[in-house]
Amino acid sequence: MQIYLIRHGIAADRNAQTTDAERPLTEGGRKKTKRVAQRLADLGVRFDALLASPLVRAEQTAAILQGMGLAARYELFTPLAPGGDIHLWVNWYQLQTYNAIALVGHQPDLGQWAEQLVWGDQGANGDRLILKKAGIIGIKLNPNGNPVGNGELFLLTSPKWLLAGG
Amino acid sequence: MQIYLIRHGIAADRNAQTTDAERPLTEGGRKKTKRVAQRLADLGVRFDALLASPLVRAEQTAAILQGMGLAARYELFTPLAPGGDIHLWVNWYQLQTYNAIALVGHQPDLGQWAEQLVWGDQGANGDRLILKKAGIIGIKLNPNGNPVGNGELFLLTSPKWLLAGG
Repeated sequence: MQIYLIRHGIAADRNAQTTDAERPLTEGGRKKTKRVAQRLADLGVRFDALLASPLVRAEQTAAILQGMGLAARYELFTPLAPGGDIHLWVNWYQLQTYNAIALVGHQPDLGQWAEQLVWGDQGANGDRLILKKAGIIGIKLNPNGNPVGNGELFLLTSPKWLLAGG
Repeated sequence: MQIYLIRHGIAADRNAQTTDAERPLTEGGRKKTKRVAQRLADLGVRFDALLASPLVRAEQTAAILQGMGLAARYELFTPLAPGGDIHLWVNWYQLQTYNAIALVGHQPDLGQWAEQLVWGDQGANGDRLILKKAGIIGIKLNPNGNPVGNGELFLLTSPKWLLAGG
């Protein structure tokens, strides 16, 4: 099983009218996220489940991924909100039988979770993976045993490396 | 400073006439490695130093990278041969003042070294990074202090994710 951890695209700054949770993607953020989604679609990537943090910038990112045909639908999943604990969601997916799922969320959580999946709760420093906005982490999970500490990292990329022409 | 760990391309099987050290890249391996090199050049990647394991398949990979303009020249560097210890070469580069260097070598060494650079000698499991042939690991090294255990991983990719059209 593959799990993709995808960071939301570039979002507008906070202002007097907008809470952090409401910050939308900028026009540039939408465009780059669409290019990343198109590239994933061209590569044949498909998600059996696509879950997003309930924050607007994450939901909008998931909507773009879904709109490009990467998943039949997406769902908001509150454990993916900023500051979440991997143990709030990691057992959820074990109940499912998916080939590939994608979680759209935030830094530093996604990088922290990736480290925990691969190196375990003790081995993770929590700040050693540079995940840019609309960047992607890919981890192969071992179907047997504890998902935390048994994964293998096969992908870590920013949009720059994915997209032809930067 | 950025360090790129690049695995050699697909090589011919061993046979009665060829030792492991002499195995050349296959025609398909040369083609895919050239496409990866072209993509890196298009992205503006340049190496101040390009070092290769002395094994033929690694030297041929480095020659392709150099031929695509990614570095002015390449050098063979015996500590990059299979089974090498990171501590045989990690102090070498500290004497230099480079912005970006690339090491062309072998698995499982490259993945092991990447883990050591990022998580330290103790934190590394040594087998948690999936690095395909002609795949690339990118690590940002902290210029201050011990390079082992202070790096940040910013790239891990197989040719599939780098190349348009697979």
